[in-house]
Amino acid sequence: MCATYEALCTHGYADLTMQDIADESTKSKAALHYHYDSKHDLLCAFLEYLYEQFVERVADSDAETPHDRLLALVDVVLANSADDPEGFETALLEIRAQAPYEPGFRERLVTFETYLLGRFTDTLEAGVEDGTFDDDIDPEDTARFLVTVLTGAATERVTVGRSVECTQRMLREYVETHLLTEQGATA
Amino acid sequence: MCATYEALCTHGYADLTMQDIADESTKSKAALHYHYDSKHDLLCAFLEYLYEQFVERVADSDAETPHDRLLALVDVVLANSADDPEGFETALLEIRAQAPYEPGFRERLVTFETYLLGRFTDTLEAGVEDGTFDDDIDPEDTARFLVTVLTGAATERVTVGRSVECTQRMLREYVETHLLTEQGATA
Repeated sequence: MCATYEALCTHGYADLTMQDIADESTKSKAALHYHYDSKHDLLCAFLEYLYEQFVERVADSDAETPHDRLLALVDVVLANSADDPEGFETALLEIRAQAPYEPGFRERLVTFETYLLGRFTDTLEAGVEDGTFDDDIDPEDTARFLVTVLTGAATERVTVGRSVECTQRMLREYVETHLLTEQGATA
Repeated sequence: MCATYEALCTHGYADLTMQDIADESTKSKAALHYHYDSKHDLLCAFLEYLYEQFVERVADSDAETPHDRLLALVDVVLANSADDPEGFETALLEIRAQAPYEPGFRERLVTFETYLLGRFTDTLEAGVEDGTFDDDIDPEDTARFLVTVLTGAATERVTVGRSVECTQRMLREYVETHLLTEQGATA
């Protein structure tokens, strides 16, 4: 999986071959083919690996209050974009753009998005319950909105080379001025 | 340009050839090559054509107040995504994902984004000036946030097949509850 990561950073998605991945690893191309029938299968496994890593990173967070959990979730997603080299983000967007042609890719991307939406919705619901967040908000719609902003930030990093800092600032402001109750803001 | 549009809808970006575009037009492949050295040059011209179409559509809007102009701008961007077949949106995301490798693409994408940011910023500034929008907002940051949401909505349509309706609803709500002043809301 690390070799796949390195090979995607260097070669991008379109030109990637099983040989490129083998070159980054201690395995031969034949050994890779023993485990994965095709580049498609290997990349599906790679998307699952990214998903598991993400779930782990979210679970590792020691944020306790709904407010802290929401910000931590935003930061885990944005940190992904900020830490990875641009080549990797680009390869990932190329893979995302293949989703309509590759049901295996779309299935994994939907799993990832469903998980992220679920985490945001749960956190928003918990915050409405304990008075942190405004009870006027629709947790599910708001979660979807936040995910859309994060998706847009990742795309813009690739397409126009914009840093995610502005998005991070705006999202923190959005949470403070639009989601938090007075009680939540002073907690 | 129409032939390029049709060819992108049918073949996507990666597999597109000059022959595919010629097949959709009344011109021969040789005639296309007379005007455009390569697929890259033709696609750069196509991105400029999309940009001009977009600018025209924005100019055609008869919205007058800052509030109406802001919603009209959102609708023009989202209508693009809703009216085009999924194949076209997918091809466009493939082209966007090539921006880091193709300075010609990035240059046109940045021009488009700069224009959109400028329109949103101007509209927000005009609205703050006439009391429609809250003078607490930073027009430039808010414009960037809106563009990020719209970019995210376009990406999600391709990657997870989500319709833009939820984004449209959330953006209208965002404008109503977070940007409009009381005076603006009742105008």
